[in-house]
Amino acid sequence: MTDAIQGRDPRTGQPVGDPVPATDPKGVDELVGAADGAVYAWRDTGREARAAALEAVADALDAHVTELVALADSETALGTTRLTGEVARTTGQLRLFAGVLRDGSYQGVVIEPAEAARPDLRRYKRSLGVVAVFAASNFPFAFSVAGGDTASALAAGCPVIVKAHEGHPRTSLRTAELVRAALESAGAPQGVFGIVFGVEEGVALVKHPLTAAVGFTGSTRGGLALARMCAERPTPIPFYGELGSVNPVIVFPAAARNRAQEIARGYAASLTQGVGQFCTNPGVMFVPDDPGLLDAIRAAVSETVGGPMLSERIHAGYLASVEDLGSRSPYVSLLAQGRPGEGPWSAAARVYQTGLGAVYQHRELLTEEHFGPVGIVVTNADPTSALRVIHGEGAGNLVATMHVDLDGGDDAEEARFVGRELAAFAGRVVYNGWPTGVAVTHAQHHGGPYPATTVPAYTSVGAAAIERWLVPVVYQDFPPQLLPEELRR
Amino acid sequence: MTDAIQGRDPRTGQPVGDPVPATDPKGVDELVGAADGAVYAWRDTGREARAAALEAVADALDAHVTELVALADSETALGTTRLTGEVARTTGQLRLFAGVLRDGSYQGVVIEPAEAARPDLRRYKRSLGVVAVFAASNFPFAFSVAGGDTASALAAGCPVIVKAHEGHPRTSLRTAELVRAALESAGAPQGVFGIVFGVEEGVALVKHPLTAAVGFTGSTRGGLALARMCAERPTPIPFYGELGSVNPVIVFPAAARNRAQEIARGYAASLTQGVGQFCTNPGVMFVPDDPGLLDAIRAAVSETVGGPMLSERIHAGYLASVEDLGSRSPYVSLLAQGRPGEGPWSAAARVYQTGLGAVYQHRELLTEEHFGPVGIVVTNADPTSALRVIHGEGAGNLVATMHVDLDGGDDAEEARFVGRELAAFAGRVVYNGWPTGVAVTHAQHHGGPYPATTVPAYTSVGAAAIERWLVPVVYQDFPPQLLPEELRR
Repeated sequence: MTDAIQGRDPRTGQPVGDPVPATDPKGVDELVGAADGAVYAWRDTGREARAAALEAVADALDAHVTELVALADSETALGTTRLTGEVARTTGQLRLFAGVLRDGSYQGVVIEPAEAARPDLRRYKRSLGVVAVFAASNFPFAFSVAGGDTASALAAGCPVIVKAHEGHPRTSLRTAELVRAALESAGAPQGVFGIVFGVEEGVALVKHPLTAAVGFTGSTRGGLALARMCAERPTPIPFYGELGSVNPVIVFPAAARNRAQEIARGYAASLTQGVGQFCTNPGVMFVPDDPGLLDAIRAAVSETVGGPMLSERIHAGYLASVEDLGSRSPYVSLLAQGRPGEGPWSAAARVYQTGLGAVYQHRELLTEEHFGPVGIVVTNADPTSALRVIHGEGAGNLVATMHVDLDGGDDAEEARFVGRELAAFAGRVVYNGWPTGVAVTHAQHHGGPYPATTVPAYTSVGAAAIERWLVPVVYQDFPPQLLPEELRR
Repeated sequence: MTDAIQGRDPRTGQPVGDPVPATDPKGVDELVGAADGAVYAWRDTGREARAAALEAVADALDAHVTELVALADSETALGTTRLTGEVARTTGQLRLFAGVLRDGSYQGVVIEPAEAARPDLRRYKRSLGVVAVFAASNFPFAFSVAGGDTASALAAGCPVIVKAHEGHPRTSLRTAELVRAALESAGAPQGVFGIVFGVEEGVALVKHPLTAAVGFTGSTRGGLALARMCAERPTPIPFYGELGSVNPVIVFPAAARNRAQEIARGYAASLTQGVGQFCTNPGVMFVPDDPGLLDAIRAAVSETVGGPMLSERIHAGYLASVEDLGSRSPYVSLLAQGRPGEGPWSAAARVYQTGLGAVYQHRELLTEEHFGPVGIVVTNADPTSALRVIHGEGAGNLVATMHVDLDGGDDAEEARFVGRELAAFAGRVVYNGWPTGVAVTHAQHHGGPYPATTVPAYTSVGAAAIERWLVPVVYQDFPPQLLPEELRR
């Protein structure tokens, strides 16, 4: 059994609040059992009542925003402004899925009455069963206890057991209390929501025979380990892992020439936002032979100020990245660095420069994520050559970006080619913008080819995230009174 | 390299026609390379032109139906009537996907223009790339070279390389010639369709770095081996395997009492159709304590006549099943058998009787498919107790069936319960019918929880089969001229 989970203030490294006890193994089994017992009751609760329950959760979080933000800030140091926005995003997600439920089209109902030799066939998508949600460290609300995975799974009609992240235990516990109370007062069945603390307890959750699917946002290493566990169960279950990604950026020559300042400032801001702790961080940028752009990057990055990272472990990872890249002279050199921040876990921006030949020979520079404000700039890289080195094993990314100045002389044909190729290995392609910032909407796709995600057909952000928790079934020649209500017409 | 593939007449076991050479390893690489070279051209061909190309393939097959049926009958002994119907089903599938293309909604286009702080987001589903299709033995047309996997993948905009089944090499070769010529005359790009012969060559196809997805219909053992290969590639790819399944049937007491003859005749017909060589064969049937029904089953099965199975290997599997089940006395006994057919690979119906306790203790009786006209009848099984033993590891099935007589006294509440539970581990639930016969329509779902399929969210039959070959991508703030045509609006 895991030790109690002690939250720490990233600004000081000191404990904050009481530790939260790990769930005991019997507790995991009881939670999953209760959740499984709620599968049909929650599904049968119906779309409107489930929508109302999600809204009740959103209202409860909104009503406690000050308390939640203070708690989360003490455990993550992400700051009041960002965290207040993140609570709004989280409750917005819950309300988005209430809307998805009321719309109803996610169920994919197709009704074909009997005709000639063909039987009556009625198909819809049913909820999968108990969903295990692994919370992320870097979004203590939006990808945590009441985040997108939980909201979409509850909307789909699946009970949810969250495995809390060790980085913000008290925020998780308090959020879970609010979620549970809101669901209960909205009439949701007992057992429909639970929370588990502890690493080994999370593994027990994944291996539990009544767990039907897993949602995960986090590191590639942790994600692939859990993915293997899901695949090796006696009955394998879907593992929707949103893992790491380097999110390449390609800058075209005219854009570099004509918009050097804007690109440099945008890059520095995107790279250092939230101390670089985003899965959409622009980890590798390809730039043409343009000294002006490099100067502008140097200047923009040097003005950034570092800050505390989420945990000692994450900070250690940052230090290891800096040490690794710093030791790769002469083919990797330091191009720019930001000013240091305060506290023991603080990270400052580090941008390294390398060449096309080096990334071709050292493919890990293009595929290994450096979590934090660490960037690699590949110089003298024309867009088409950049694509050539990006292609290959491990090329899958959550997002890829291109900066183009068509009016300023960049070639439209090449831009079209690059856009198409980027779309072959990224789930989202951004034009003249930056990869950080993922709008929660119906059109959004936050996914991408392996290894960015383990199941590239799905998204973890936006309305389509509900599709992960559903599976089709077709009823043949059933009398109306035995059909699910949605198929009776 | 595999030896040349020799077709054999199942009625005599003798060679029929010249052997078809295995593809050499270089040939596999060339075919996949050419297919990959056609990915963008085929996608850019557009929906209407792809639809016309699919129709051209359908027309070509229809124009050669007599030749194709004769060839296939000589290699499979499935008979002219069945095979003529199967060609019609195959060309119907191709035309169904032409309709899916013209409808266009499969692409899942969502367009959200920029608004306030939100960027312009345009999402659709792009084709995955080169698809490898593993043909099945038991449907030389509908699940083979030009079958549903090929039709749906080509429709999605994916080039296809078929791995021919060893059971009908000359049928495969001739079909491939017709498909290739029809695609070429319809203006499809070079390389968009290819065929590979040989077992090791099929493995090379799965492992080829440019293969993007695999469709498979066949045995559980072969499917799981290929699934593992796909998962263990440096870049894993989706493996859509439709594997084996025992397709349980539950007979309610009043139905057994009031419709014994009808149920027995339907069962015997479904069990022996096509010499039982269907993945939807009713392998296990639960019946109540009703001597009348057992007598009727004995009589109906004894009137069936056996026939030649598809291959020596499949016939050997049937003999092994019969030997296994025959050796399980006293808890398994022979209930009924059909009359023998002619030829060295002939199989006659064998129906075994067992009890609820036995299948509880010997779970493999409920999960191991016996390919061919081999059935297990579990006696003294009330519906709710039957469900209790079905539940558990390996319970996933393609289809489950219930026979109920509500007017005759079966309990509606229990029937509702059983229907709901069957829908939890089968992709299709049939009421008062039989599992064999899968209509190719928009509502159809031919899939089901593991191990019936490796990816339960998808179907291999019906319009939704196209979804396997697509993956979403979203464009953020792209200028219209750089967008895929579908997203320009």
